[in-house]
Amino acid sequence: MRATALAAALALLVSTPLLARQPTRIGDAAITQATQLRDAALADKTAWHVTESLTTEVGPRMAGSPADARAVEWAKAMFKALGYDKVWTEPVTFPKWERRSESAQVLGAHPQPLHVTALGGSPGGTVEAEVVRFATLEALESAAPGSLAGKIAFVDVQMPRTPTGEGYGLGSHVRGAGPSAAVKAGAIGYLMRSAGTDFHRNPHTGISRFQPGLTPIPMAALSLPDADQLARLAALGPTRVKLALDCGWNGEYTSQNVIGEITGRSKPDDVVVIGGHLDSWDLGTGAIDDGAGIGISMAAGHLIGRLPKAQRPARTIRVIAFANEEQGLFGGRAYAEAHKARITRHQIGAESDLGAGRIYAFNAKVPDYAKDAVAQIAQVLAPLGIAHREDTEGCGPDTSPFNAIGMACAGLAQDASKYFDYHHTPDDTLDKIDPAELAQNVAAYAAFAYLAADAQGDFGSALKAPPAPPKK
Amino acid sequence: MRATALAAALALLVSTPLLARQPTRIGDAAITQATQLRDAALADKTAWHVTESLTTEVGPRMAGSPADARAVEWAKAMFKALGYDKVWTEPVTFPKWERRSESAQVLGAHPQPLHVTALGGSPGGTVEAEVVRFATLEALESAAPGSLAGKIAFVDVQMPRTPTGEGYGLGSHVRGAGPSAAVKAGAIGYLMRSAGTDFHRNPHTGISRFQPGLTPIPMAALSLPDADQLARLAALGPTRVKLALDCGWNGEYTSQNVIGEITGRSKPDDVVVIGGHLDSWDLGTGAIDDGAGIGISMAAGHLIGRLPKAQRPARTIRVIAFANEEQGLFGGRAYAEAHKARITRHQIGAESDLGAGRIYAFNAKVPDYAKDAVAQIAQVLAPLGIAHREDTEGCGPDTSPFNAIGMACAGLAQDASKYFDYHHTPDDTLDKIDPAELAQNVAAYAAFAYLAADAQGDFGSALKAPPAPPKK
Repeated sequence: MRATALAAALALLVSTPLLARQPTRIGDAAITQATQLRDAALADKTAWHVTESLTTEVGPRMAGSPADARAVEWAKAMFKALGYDKVWTEPVTFPKWERRSESAQVLGAHPQPLHVTALGGSPGGTVEAEVVRFATLEALESAAPGSLAGKIAFVDVQMPRTPTGEGYGLGSHVRGAGPSAAVKAGAIGYLMRSAGTDFHRNPHTGISRFQPGLTPIPMAALSLPDADQLARLAALGPTRVKLALDCGWNGEYTSQNVIGEITGRSKPDDVVVIGGHLDSWDLGTGAIDDGAGIGISMAAGHLIGRLPKAQRPARTIRVIAFANEEQGLFGGRAYAEAHKARITRHQIGAESDLGAGRIYAFNAKVPDYAKDAVAQIAQVLAPLGIAHREDTEGCGPDTSPFNAIGMACAGLAQDASKYFDYHHTPDDTLDKIDPAELAQNVAAYAAFAYLAADAQGDFGSALKAPPAPPKK
Repeated sequence: MRATALAAALALLVSTPLLARQPTRIGDAAITQATQLRDAALADKTAWHVTESLTTEVGPRMAGSPADARAVEWAKAMFKALGYDKVWTEPVTFPKWERRSESAQVLGAHPQPLHVTALGGSPGGTVEAEVVRFATLEALESAAPGSLAGKIAFVDVQMPRTPTGEGYGLGSHVRGAGPSAAVKAGAIGYLMRSAGTDFHRNPHTGISRFQPGLTPIPMAALSLPDADQLARLAALGPTRVKLALDCGWNGEYTSQNVIGEITGRSKPDDVVVIGGHLDSWDLGTGAIDDGAGIGISMAAGHLIGRLPKAQRPARTIRVIAFANEEQGLFGGRAYAEAHKARITRHQIGAESDLGAGRIYAFNAKVPDYAKDAVAQIAQVLAPLGIAHREDTEGCGPDTSPFNAIGMACAGLAQDASKYFDYHHTPDDTLDKIDPAELAQNVAAYAAFAYLAADAQGDFGSALKAPPAPPKK
């Protein structure tokens, strides 16, 4: 068979199911129940109380820190207090990174402090050197090897403010790729304008890693006012900076994914997954990142769980509080690895991890036979001001590894206009959450989860077999 | 003479001048010149460049710190670069307070850091104690002596946001009076919700002093999110905090008021005073407090100074960059003391020390014979969006000691809606200033100073004789 004929045959296979498949549908009773859940959620304060409790009683909870273990105990107790039918933990092991102290100063004729924070994964060390400013990451990447010998590279790129949060793509790229580019050019330290949109003296941390084979150098982010200041000083003439970081990798740590379930009415072994991540960075109290996601998903499950058993959805609602998302999706990857053999029993999943701003759009990428059911869910969400938009992306960070092995994902897109004002900074605190916006999120998650869990038919996860085990 | 008759006679004396006094008037040529100055100032960038230079090249410049001396040298050089006719300094001596380090942590079951800053004037020391929260200052003031033995008092009062900035009255009162009340009740430490209106993790510093005879205790302000957090934790149960401050008074320091003059056309020994304060707190770069005031007043004088000599106002424009306003108006008081014998040669004064927000109202409290001239000035300011409002208060902090001994003051009231978001915090940085708003301030100060300096007649300063020298 020629290649073109083969391609035509394959296209036919893909577009025309071999078996005429029944469309996935959601029954009227489920629509009625989800509508009531949605409206009740708008007046319910559970998510607020959960988020308040986590951010107050545990506070900052960086993965591997003493507060990580307190957060796990808190989550177990909270699931139980909220009446979940089953509560358990699953281990998640990762390298531990510690931040002990950090400071920076301009030296010379204009001495003054700079507000910096070490990027997660930075080695410790103190460097005093002239700063070389780059207006783009590409400019640093084009620097000749050795050209920054004995210098500190400073990448001064402003990420844009966007309602979708997509401006973070640029900011996180500067954080992820910049340090390695600096090492390749010979730099002994790396500074960047924070991946953030606010003009407060709060630098934004976040994980970064060096390419294999490179010798790590101290790396830190400047607050936006400090990046402005350093750019002005560098424009006046050669500017030396002292960067002193005491931090670094220190062994391994085993935390836990904490999981709570509301058992399904008739298909208890099939699950709809919702969740957020339990860890936070250490600088703030992790309210928008991701206390809100924990509060929203725990509250959504709780509202479904308090229904009479006969009115529960057919499938189980599984709420996952993921361990260590911040340093590399360790919780999500561990869950996917542990559950890959049963991934086809995961009906669909959604993670809340973009703060507590209003949800404005919904979609799920599913086969044609399930599109009507997605539209049915969208209809229930519409009164919340949520549009059914085909371009809405699914999958939060921790559920993306499930999606990669076959689970369908729903996207509940939040207004992230202000999210990157606070993200990964000391300013990520409870006061940044609007209780009414938080409740709108719960309403959407509760209705979505209920409807997906009660659908007659699936959303496509069963289409893909789990990957074969690796060959020996 | 009976008392009532005496009072009636005195009232007659006050309301009816013994000599029929010519009303103070401003000539048409001056109105034309000031109108041109006003409009030119709106397009001029001098104030921005001055403020940028001070906040970038000197940066934070707390009174008595090494940066204080750098600021003095900067101001002398800047006056000269701006073409001022005379530039000189006058010494200002004050006790020196130093901030070296500061931290606070919640202890016990919910351990976490709190963002605090020592209040200026705090002694150093480390205390670990239970926190007792007071919702009002009055509640603390009512606490029985000894009732806070071994405790940390926490006054949790939110100052209101107001366009005029008057909410700061409450905030600064809690800062000024709270520590002494805490000592009287036996407390070993003092914490307060910052006198601020923002919800960022930046506590607001500011001076405080203990009443004579009381033993000072460590005193610090919490950022608003941290005050919220501590209030929530205290509501959960007894909450212990460790407050560790390394700071304190350390000898004396002599700084300088830096003064620049644009010599008057025909009455060079009579002066109109404008200015701001050169010192800042150490946490930010002192952009709105008070780099803006320095920029506005230096630029206003500069714009007048670059006029042809024949078009200058009759009197001299004296621009004063005051030393150490923050810790007790030391610069203003030193100037008043040094110049009290010549206070009648001070036509009128105005200080810019409420940031760089737009000026929305103008007035000067003057005798009846000078009110028409004030109205003439108001007419020139009106196109800037500045209302002539009788209730507008005059005198900035540093010029108030001049007013006390007889100098008239003008009030150019600024929109302070956002001022207390940044005031006395690390967030007081250049990016908080809108160049167009800054230029509107310069336009108002330049027009006001020109018109006042060219008025035919005075604004009442000559009515009061300087106080008699103290008796030996």
